Amino acid sequence: MPTIKYYVREGLLPPGELSSPNQAHYDEVHERRLRLIRALLEVGGLKVAAIAEVLGAVDDPECSLHKVLGAAADRLGGQGVADDDAEAVTARAAVERLIARRGWHTHQSNPAVEDLARALAAMGRVGHGAFTELLDDYADAAELVARADLGYVGRRVAVEDLVESVVIGTVLGEAVFNAVRRLAHVDASARLYGADREDEGTVEEEKGEKGEKGEKGE
Amino acid sequence: MPTIKYYVREGLLPPGELSSPNQAHYDEVHERRLRLIRALLEVGGLKVAAIAEVLGAVDDPECSLHKVLGAAADRLGGQGVADDDAEAVTARAAVERLIARRGWHTHQSNPAVEDLARALAAMGRVGHGAFTELLDDYADAAELVARADLGYVGRRVAVEDLVESVVIGTVLGEAVFNAVRRLAHVDASARLYGADREDEGTVEEEKGEKGEKGEKGE
Repeated sequence: MPTIKYYVREGLLPPGELSSPNQAHYDEVHERRLRLIRALLEVGGLKVAAIAEVLGAVDDPECSLHKVLGAAADRLGGQGVADDDAEAVTARAAVERLIARRGWHTHQSNPAVEDLARALAAMGRVGHGAFTELLDDYADAAELVARADLGYVGRRVAVEDLVESVVIGTVLGEAVFNAVRRLAHVDASARLYGADREDEGTVEEEKGEKGEKGEKGE
Repeated sequence: MPTIKYYVREGLLPPGELSSPNQAHYDEVHERRLRLIRALLEVGGLKVAAIAEVLGAVDDPECSLHKVLGAAADRLGGQGVADDDAEAVTARAAVERLIARRGWHTHQSNPAVEDLARALAAMGRVGHGAFTELLDDYADAAELVARADLGYVGRRVAVEDLVESVVIGTVLGEAVFNAVRRLAHVDASARLYGADREDEGTVEEEKGEKGEKGEKGE
Protein backbone atom coordinates (compact mmCIF):
# COMPACT_ATOMS: atom_id res chain seq x y z
CA MET A 1 0.00 0.00 0.00
CA PRO A 2 2.06 2.94 -1.24
CA THR A 3 -0.27 5.60 0.20
CA ILE A 4 0.31 4.35 3.75
CA LYS A 5 4.08 4.45 3.18
CA TYR A 6 3.67 7.99 1.86
CA TYR A 7 1.69 9.09 4.92
CA VAL A 8 4.31 7.48 7.20
CA ARG A 9 7.09 9.29 5.31
CA GLU A 10 5.23 12.60 5.63
CA GLY A 11 4.82 12.07 9.38
CA LEU A 12 1.02 11.70 9.27
CA LEU A 13 1.05 8.09 10.46
CA PRO A 14 3.44 6.39 12.89
CA PRO A 15 5.33 3.51 11.25
CA GLY A 16 3.68 0.09 11.62
CA GLU A 17 5.28 -2.73 13.59
CA LEU A 18 7.60 -4.74 11.33
CA SER A 19 6.31 -8.32 11.23
CA SER A 20 8.97 -9.27 8.62
CA PRO A 21 11.65 -7.20 6.82
CA ASN A 22 9.20 -6.26 4.06
CA GLN A 23 5.91 -6.40 5.93
CA ALA A 24 4.61 -3.93 8.45
CA HIS A 25 1.66 -4.58 10.71
CA TYR A 26 -0.94 -1.84 11.11
CA ASP A 27 -3.39 -2.00 14.00
CA GLU A 28 -6.85 -0.54 14.63
CA VAL A 29 -5.38 2.78 15.78
CA HIS A 30 -3.51 3.05 12.47
CA GLU A 31 -6.60 2.21 10.46
CA ARG A 32 -8.67 4.78 12.29
CA ARG A 33 -6.00 7.45 11.75
CA LEU A 34 -5.80 6.46 8.08
CA ARG A 35 -9.56 6.95 7.65
CA LEU A 36 -9.25 10.37 9.30
CA ILE A 37 -6.38 11.41 7.01
CA ARG A 38 -8.33 10.35 3.93
CA ALA A 39 -11.45 12.23 5.05
CA LEU A 40 -9.49 15.44 5.70
CA LEU A 41 -7.66 15.06 2.38
CA GLU A 42 -10.48 14.01 0.07
CA VAL A 43 -13.55 15.71 1.51
CA GLY A 44 -12.04 18.49 3.60
CA GLY A 45 -9.62 19.46 0.83
CA LEU A 46 -6.75 19.98 3.28
CA LYS A 47 -3.18 19.67 2.05
CA VAL A 48 -0.82 17.04 3.50
CA ALA A 49 1.25 19.67 5.33
CA ALA A 50 -1.89 21.15 6.91
CA ILE A 51 -3.06 17.70 8.00
CA ALA A 52 0.33 17.06 9.62
CA GLU A 53 -0.04 20.26 11.65
CA VAL A 54 -3.61 19.51 12.70
CA LEU A 55 -2.74 15.92 13.71
CA GLY A 56 0.24 17.25 15.65
CA ALA A 57 -2.21 19.36 17.67
CA VAL A 58 -4.59 16.39 18.06
CA ASP A 59 -1.76 14.20 19.43
CA ASP A 60 -0.32 16.84 21.75
CA PRO A 61 -1.57 16.02 25.28
CA GLU A 62 -0.66 19.56 26.36
CA CYS A 63 -3.03 21.05 23.80
CA SER A 64 -6.42 22.14 25.16
CA LEU A 65 -9.55 21.46 23.14
CA HIS A 66 -9.94 25.16 22.47
CA LYS A 67 -6.39 25.34 21.09
CA VAL A 68 -6.91 22.31 18.83
CA LEU A 69 -10.07 23.85 17.44
CA GLY A 70 -8.03 26.96 16.77
CA ALA A 71 -5.30 24.91 15.07
CA ALA A 72 -7.88 23.22 12.83
CA ALA A 73 -9.46 26.56 11.94
CA ASP A 74 -6.04 28.09 11.26
CA ARG A 75 -5.15 25.33 8.78
CA LEU A 76 -8.45 25.71 6.95
CA GLY A 77 -7.90 29.32 6.10
CA GLY A 78 -5.28 31.93 5.59
CA GLN A 79 -4.57 31.28 1.93
CA GLY A 80 -3.93 34.19 -0.35
CA VAL A 81 -2.29 37.53 0.14
CA ALA A 82 -3.81 40.38 2.06
CA ASP A 83 -4.58 43.39 -0.14
CA ASP A 84 -4.40 46.98 0.95
CA ASP A 85 -6.69 48.87 -1.38
CA ALA A 86 -9.75 50.86 -0.28
CA GLU A 87 -12.01 47.79 -0.50
CA ALA A 88 -9.70 45.79 1.76
CA VAL A 89 -9.67 48.58 4.37
CA THR A 90 -13.47 48.94 4.24
CA ALA A 91 -13.92 45.17 4.48
CA ARG A 92 -11.60 44.85 7.50
CA ALA A 93 -13.52 47.60 9.29
CA ALA A 94 -16.82 45.80 8.55
CA VAL A 95 -15.42 42.56 10.01
CA GLU A 96 -14.22 44.35 13.15
CA ARG A 97 -17.65 45.92 13.62
CA LEU A 98 -19.32 42.53 13.14
CA ILE A 99 -17.11 40.88 15.78
CA ALA A 100 -17.74 43.74 18.21
CA ARG A 101 -21.50 43.76 17.53
CA ARG A 102 -21.83 40.00 18.09
CA GLY A 103 -19.56 40.06 21.14
CA TRP A 104 -17.58 37.21 19.62
CA HIS A 105 -14.50 35.89 21.35
CA THR A 106 -11.69 35.60 18.87
CA HIS A 107 -7.92 35.65 18.77
CA GLN A 108 -5.66 38.00 16.88
CA SER A 109 -4.17 35.32 14.68
CA ASN A 110 -7.47 33.70 13.66
CA PRO A 111 -7.13 33.59 9.86
CA ALA A 112 -10.92 33.54 9.50
CA VAL A 113 -10.84 37.30 10.24
CA GLU A 114 -8.59 37.98 7.25
CA ASP A 115 -10.38 35.39 5.08
CA LEU A 116 -13.70 37.10 5.74
CA ALA A 117 -12.22 40.52 4.99
CA ARG A 118 -10.67 39.16 1.76
CA ALA A 119 -13.98 37.69 0.57
CA LEU A 120 -15.87 40.92 1.38
CA ALA A 121 -13.21 43.02 -0.34
CA ALA A 122 -13.53 40.85 -3.46
CA MET A 123 -17.29 41.46 -3.32
CA GLY A 124 -16.61 45.20 -3.06
CA ARG A 125 -14.31 45.14 -6.11
CA VAL A 126 -17.03 43.62 -8.28
CA GLY A 127 -19.58 46.21 -7.16
CA HIS A 128 -21.14 44.38 -4.22
CA GLY A 129 -19.86 46.27 -1.21
CA ALA A 130 -23.47 46.33 0.02
CA PHE A 131 -23.23 42.57 0.58
CA THR A 132 -21.88 43.44 4.07
CA GLU A 133 -25.55 44.16 4.93
CA LEU A 134 -26.07 40.39 5.03
CA LEU A 135 -23.36 39.77 7.62
CA ASP A 136 -25.77 39.58 10.55
CA ASP A 137 -27.97 37.05 8.74
CA TYR A 138 -24.82 35.04 7.99
CA ALA A 139 -23.75 35.37 11.62
CA ASP A 140 -27.18 34.19 12.87
CA ALA A 141 -26.90 31.14 10.61
CA ALA A 142 -23.29 30.50 11.63
CA GLU A 143 -24.16 30.68 15.33
CA LEU A 144 -26.98 28.20 14.75
CA VAL A 145 -24.54 25.80 13.07
CA ALA A 146 -21.84 26.33 15.72
CA ARG A 147 -24.33 25.64 18.52
CA ALA A 148 -25.49 22.45 16.79
CA ASP A 149 -21.88 21.32 16.28
CA LEU A 150 -20.80 21.96 19.85
CA GLY A 151 -24.02 20.37 21.16
CA TYR A 152 -23.27 17.25 19.12
CA VAL A 153 -19.73 17.12 20.46
CA GLY A 154 -20.98 17.48 24.05
CA ARG A 155 -23.68 14.80 23.71
CA ARG A 156 -22.15 12.24 21.43
CA VAL A 157 -18.46 12.20 21.91
CA ALA A 158 -16.44 10.34 24.53
CA VAL A 159 -13.82 12.51 26.23
CA GLU A 160 -10.88 10.63 24.67
CA ASP A 161 -12.30 11.27 21.18
CA LEU A 162 -13.15 14.91 21.78
CA VAL A 163 -10.18 16.51 20.09
CA GLU A 164 -10.34 14.32 16.99
CA SER A 165 -14.09 14.93 16.74
CA VAL A 166 -13.66 18.68 16.82
CA VAL A 167 -11.23 18.46 13.90
CA ILE A 168 -13.62 16.24 11.94
CA GLY A 169 -16.56 18.52 12.67
CA THR A 170 -14.66 21.65 11.73
CA VAL A 171 -13.32 20.33 8.44
CA LEU A 172 -16.03 17.95 7.22
CA GLY A 173 -18.82 20.07 8.68
CA GLU A 174 -17.75 22.86 6.33
CA ALA A 175 -18.15 20.53 3.35
CA VAL A 176 -21.56 19.48 4.67
CA PHE A 177 -22.78 23.05 5.12
CA ASN A 178 -21.55 24.20 1.71
CA ALA A 179 -23.48 21.41 0.05
CA VAL A 180 -26.62 22.08 2.12
CA ARG A 181 -26.39 25.81 1.30
CA ARG A 182 -26.20 25.02 -2.42
CA LEU A 183 -29.29 22.83 -2.13
CA ALA A 184 -31.15 25.62 -0.30
CA HIS A 185 -30.06 28.10 -3.00
CA VAL A 186 -31.39 25.98 -5.83
CA ASP A 187 -34.66 25.58 -3.92
CA ALA A 188 -35.00 29.31 -3.14
CA SER A 189 -34.13 30.17 -6.74
CA ALA A 190 -36.61 27.63 -8.13
CA ARG A 191 -39.36 29.14 -5.99
CA LEU A 192 -38.53 32.71 -6.98
CA TYR A 193 -37.33 32.51 -10.57
CA GLY A 194 -37.95 28.91 -11.67
CA ALA A 195 -39.36 28.78 -15.17
CA ASP A 196 -37.86 25.49 -16.28
CA ARG A 197 -39.65 23.08 -13.99
CA GLU A 198 -39.04 20.09 -16.21
CA ASP A 199 -35.57 19.40 -14.85
CA GLU A 200 -36.62 19.55 -11.22
CA GLY A 201 -37.31 16.55 -9.11
CA THR A 202 -40.00 18.30 -7.08
CA VAL A 203 -40.22 16.41 -3.83
CA GLU A 204 -42.70 18.56 -1.97
CA GLU A 205 -44.60 17.96 1.26
CA GLU A 206 -43.24 14.42 1.29
CA LYS A 207 -42.94 14.24 5.04
CA GLY A 208 -42.24 10.53 5.43
CA GLU A 209 -38.89 8.84 5.74
CA LYS A 210 -39.05 7.52 2.19
CA GLY A 211 -37.33 9.42 -0.62
CA GLU A 212 -38.67 9.25 -4.15
CA LYS A 213 -37.73 5.95 -5.71
CA GLY A 214 -36.56 7.37 -9.03
CA GLU A 215 -33.98 9.61 -7.37
CA LYS A 216 -31.53 7.02 -6.17
CA GLY A 217 -29.64 6.22 -9.38
CA GLU A 218 -28.20 9.26 -11.12
CA MET B 1 -0.11 42.18 -18.78
CA PRO B 2 0.42 38.44 -19.26
CA THR B 3 -2.53 37.36 -17.12
CA ILE B 4 -4.99 39.19 -19.40
CA LYS B 5 -3.45 37.45 -22.42
CA TYR B 6 -3.76 34.16 -20.61
CA TYR B 7 -7.44 34.75 -19.81
CA VAL B 8 -8.07 35.74 -23.45
CA ARG B 9 -6.32 32.56 -24.63
CA GLU B 10 -8.40 30.44 -22.26
CA GLY B 11 -11.60 32.05 -23.54
CA LEU B 12 -12.48 33.84 -20.28
CA LEU B 13 -12.08 37.33 -21.75
CA PRO B 14 -12.89 38.54 -25.27
CA PRO B 15 -9.78 39.91 -27.05
CA GLY B 16 -9.25 43.67 -26.65
CA GLU B 17 -9.43 46.06 -29.58
CA LEU B 18 -6.01 46.33 -31.25
CA SER B 19 -4.91 49.97 -31.04
CA SER B 20 -1.50 49.10 -32.57
CA PRO B 21 0.05 45.77 -33.66
CA ASN B 22 1.41 45.15 -30.14
CA GLN B 23 -1.12 47.05 -28.06
CA ALA B 24 -4.66 46.01 -27.27
CA HIS B 25 -7.22 48.34 -25.76
CA TYR B 26 -9.38 47.03 -22.91
CA ASP B 27 -12.54 48.89 -21.99
CA GLU B 28 -14.65 49.13 -18.82
CA VAL B 29 -16.53 45.91 -19.69
CA HIS B 30 -13.20 44.09 -19.91
CA GLU B 31 -12.01 45.47 -16.62
CA ARG B 32 -15.20 44.52 -14.87
CA ARG B 33 -15.00 40.99 -16.26
CA LEU B 34 -11.35 40.80 -15.22
CA ARG B 35 -12.26 41.73 -11.63
CA LEU B 36 -14.93 39.03 -11.66
CA ILE B 37 -12.49 36.38 -12.97
CA ARG B 38 -9.95 37.27 -10.30
CA ALA B 39 -12.56 37.12 -7.53
CA LEU B 40 -13.81 33.69 -8.66
CA LEU B 41 -10.23 32.44 -9.00
CA GLU B 42 -8.61 33.86 -5.88
CA VAL B 43 -11.41 33.93 -3.34
CA GLY B 44 -13.90 31.44 -4.77
CA GLY B 45 -11.15 28.92 -5.51
CA LEU B 46 -12.67 27.97 -8.88
CA LYS B 47 -10.46 26.51 -11.58
CA VAL B 48 -10.00 28.32 -14.93
CA ALA B 49 -12.05 25.69 -16.80
CA ALA B 50 -14.90 26.02 -14.29
CA ILE B 51 -14.86 29.82 -14.62
CA ALA B 52 -15.06 29.49 -18.41
CA GLU B 53 -18.18 27.35 -18.05
CA VAL B 54 -19.83 29.67 -15.54
CA LEU B 55 -19.08 32.78 -17.66
CA GLY B 56 -20.45 30.94 -20.69
CA ALA B 57 -23.74 30.57 -18.82
CA VAL B 58 -23.60 34.22 -17.67
CA ASP B 59 -23.16 35.40 -21.27
CA ASP B 60 -25.82 33.13 -22.78
CA PRO B 61 -28.96 35.27 -23.28
CA GLU B 62 -31.02 32.07 -23.58
CA CYS B 63 -30.01 30.98 -20.11
CA SER B 64 -32.59 31.67 -17.39
CA LEU B 65 -31.46 32.99 -14.02
CA HIS B 66 -32.43 29.70 -12.43
CA LYS B 67 -30.24 27.80 -14.93
CA VAL B 68 -27.25 30.09 -14.38
CA LEU B 69 -27.54 29.60 -10.64
CA GLY B 70 -27.55 25.87 -11.35
CA ALA B 71 -24.47 26.17 -13.58
CA ALA B 72 -22.61 28.09 -10.88
CA ALA B 73 -23.59 25.52 -8.25
CA ASP B 74 -22.57 22.66 -10.56
CA ARG B 75 -19.11 24.12 -11.06
CA LEU B 76 -18.60 24.59 -7.34
CA GLY B 77 -19.10 20.95 -6.53
CA GLY B 78 -18.88 17.48 -7.95
CA GLN B 79 -15.20 16.84 -7.22
CA GLY B 80 -14.13 13.40 -6.15
CA VAL B 81 -15.40 9.95 -6.91
CA ALA B 82 -18.63 8.52 -5.58
CA ASP B 83 -18.07 5.57 -3.26
CA ASP B 84 -20.38 2.61 -2.89
CA ASP B 85 -19.69 1.20 0.55
CA ALA B 86 -22.29 0.92 3.32
CA GLU B 87 -21.55 4.46 4.57
CA ALA B 88 -22.13 5.92 1.10
CA VAL B 89 -25.47 4.14 0.77
CA THR B 90 -26.58 5.26 4.25
CA ALA B 91 -25.48 8.82 3.56
CA ARG B 92 -27.33 9.01 0.23
CA ALA B 93 -30.52 7.80 1.91
CA ALA B 94 -30.11 10.46 4.62
CA VAL B 95 -29.75 13.16 1.94
CA GLU B 96 -32.85 11.93 0.11
CA ARG B 97 -34.84 12.01 3.34
CA LEU B 98 -33.59 15.52 4.11
CA ILE B 99 -34.65 16.82 0.68
CA ALA B 100 -38.06 15.16 1.02
CA ARG B 101 -38.53 16.42 4.59
CA ARG B 102 -37.68 20.01 3.67
CA GLY B 103 -39.75 19.88 0.46
CA TRP B 104 -36.74 21.23 -1.42
CA HIS B 105 -36.87 21.68 -5.17
CA THR B 106 -33.78 20.22 -6.71
CA HIS B 107 -32.63 18.68 -9.98
CA GLN B 108 -31.23 15.22 -10.58
CA SER B 109 -27.85 16.46 -11.72
CA ASN B 110 -27.28 18.90 -8.82
CA PRO B 111 -23.79 17.85 -7.64
CA ALA B 112 -24.53 19.27 -4.18
CA VAL B 113 -26.60 16.12 -3.54
CA GLU B 114 -23.61 13.85 -4.14
CA ASP B 115 -21.22 16.27 -2.37
CA LEU B 116 -23.40 16.21 0.72
CA ALA B 117 -23.64 12.42 0.63
CA ARG B 118 -19.85 12.19 0.20
CA ALA B 119 -19.18 14.44 3.21
CA LEU B 120 -21.67 12.53 5.38
CA ALA B 121 -20.22 9.17 4.28
CA ALA B 122 -16.74 10.40 5.24
CA MET B 123 -18.17 11.35 8.65
CA GLY B 124 -19.64 7.85 8.93
CA ARG B 125 -16.30 6.21 8.13
CA VAL B 126 -14.58 8.04 10.99
CA GLY B 127 -17.29 7.02 13.45
CA HIS B 128 -19.60 10.03 13.15
CA GLY B 129 -22.61 8.64 11.32
CA ALA B 130 -24.75 10.31 14.01
CA PHE B 131 -23.72 13.69 12.59
CA THR B 132 -26.72 13.33 10.23
CA GLU B 133 -28.80 14.32 13.30
CA LEU B 134 -27.58 17.88 12.72
CA LEU B 135 -28.84 18.07 9.15
CA ASP B 136 -32.02 19.94 10.03
CA ASP B 137 -30.07 22.55 12.03
CA TYR B 138 -27.76 22.91 9.04
CA ALA B 139 -30.77 23.17 6.72
CA ASP B 140 -32.37 25.86 8.92
CA ALA B 141 -29.14 27.85 8.78
CA ALA B 142 -28.76 27.30 5.03
CA GLU B 143 -32.33 28.46 4.36
CA LEU B 144 -31.66 31.59 6.41
CA VAL B 145 -28.57 32.32 4.31
CA ALA B 146 -30.33 31.50 1.03
CA ARG B 147 -33.24 33.82 1.90
CA ALA B 148 -30.81 36.63 2.77
CA ASP B 149 -28.90 36.09 -0.50
CA LEU B 150 -31.98 36.05 -2.69
CA GLY B 151 -33.42 39.04 -0.83
CA TYR B 152 -30.22 40.98 -1.49
CA VAL B 153 -30.34 40.07 -5.17
CA GLY B 154 -33.97 41.17 -5.41
CA ARG B 155 -33.41 44.50 -3.62
CA ARG B 156 -29.98 45.58 -4.73
CA VAL B 157 -29.33 44.31 -8.18
CA ALA B 158 -30.34 45.86 -11.51
CA VAL B 159 -31.93 43.36 -13.90
CA GLU B 160 -29.00 43.47 -16.32
CA ASP B 161 -26.58 42.55 -13.51
CA LEU B 162 -28.76 39.82 -12.05
CA VAL B 163 -27.04 36.81 -13.57
CA GLU B 164 -23.53 38.00 -12.75
CA SER B 165 -24.61 38.85 -9.20
CA VAL B 166 -26.00 35.39 -8.63
CA VAL B 167 -22.66 33.88 -9.64
CA ILE B 168 -20.77 36.25 -7.34
CA GLY B 169 -23.14 35.57 -4.46
CA THR B 170 -22.98 31.82 -4.93
CA VAL B 171 -19.20 31.59 -5.12
CA LEU B 172 -17.98 34.42 -2.88
CA GLY B 173 -20.89 34.01 -0.46
CA GLU B 174 -19.58 30.51 0.27
CA ALA B 175 -16.18 31.93 1.20
CA VAL B 176 -17.91 34.54 3.38
CA PHE B 177 -20.02 31.96 5.21
CA ASN B 178 -17.13 29.57 5.81
CA ALA B 179 -15.15 32.35 7.43
CA VAL B 180 -18.11 33.51 9.54
CA ARG B 181 -18.77 29.90 10.64
CA ARG B 182 -15.16 29.56 11.75
CA LEU B 183 -15.45 32.76 13.77
CA ALA B 184 -18.65 31.49 15.40
CA HIS B 185 -16.94 28.18 16.19
CA VAL B 186 -14.02 29.80 17.94
CA ASP B 187 -16.46 31.92 19.93
CA ALA B 188 -18.68 28.96 20.90
CA SER B 189 -15.61 26.91 21.80
CA ALA B 190 -14.13 29.74 23.88
CA ARG B 191 -17.37 30.05 25.84
CA LEU B 192 -17.64 26.30 26.44
CA TYR B 193 -14.08 25.07 26.76
CA GLY B 194 -11.90 28.17 26.81
CA ALA B 195 -9.17 27.90 29.42
CA ASP B 196 -6.48 29.92 27.72
CA ARG B 197 -8.04 33.38 27.77
CA GLU B 198 -4.76 35.19 27.33
CA ASP B 199 -4.74 34.89 23.54
CA GLU B 200 -8.30 36.10 23.05
CA GLY B 201 -9.30 39.58 22.14
CA THR B 202 -12.48 39.47 24.18
CA VAL B 203 -14.81 42.03 22.68
CA GLU B 204 -17.95 41.41 24.67
CA GLU B 205 -21.15 43.42 24.95
CA GLU B 206 -19.55 46.08 22.81
CA LYS B 207 -22.73 46.90 20.93
CA GLY B 208 -21.60 50.09 19.21
CA GLU B 209 -20.14 50.48 15.74
CA LYS B 210 -16.63 50.90 17.14
CA GLY B 211 -14.24 47.96 17.23
CA GLU B 212 -11.54 47.77 19.86
CA LYS B 213 -8.70 50.06 19.01
CA GLY B 214 -5.94 47.56 19.69
CA GLU B 215 -7.35 45.02 17.21
CA LYS B 216 -6.59 46.72 13.94
CA GLY B 217 -2.94 45.81 13.52
CA GLU B 218 -2.20 42.07 13.61
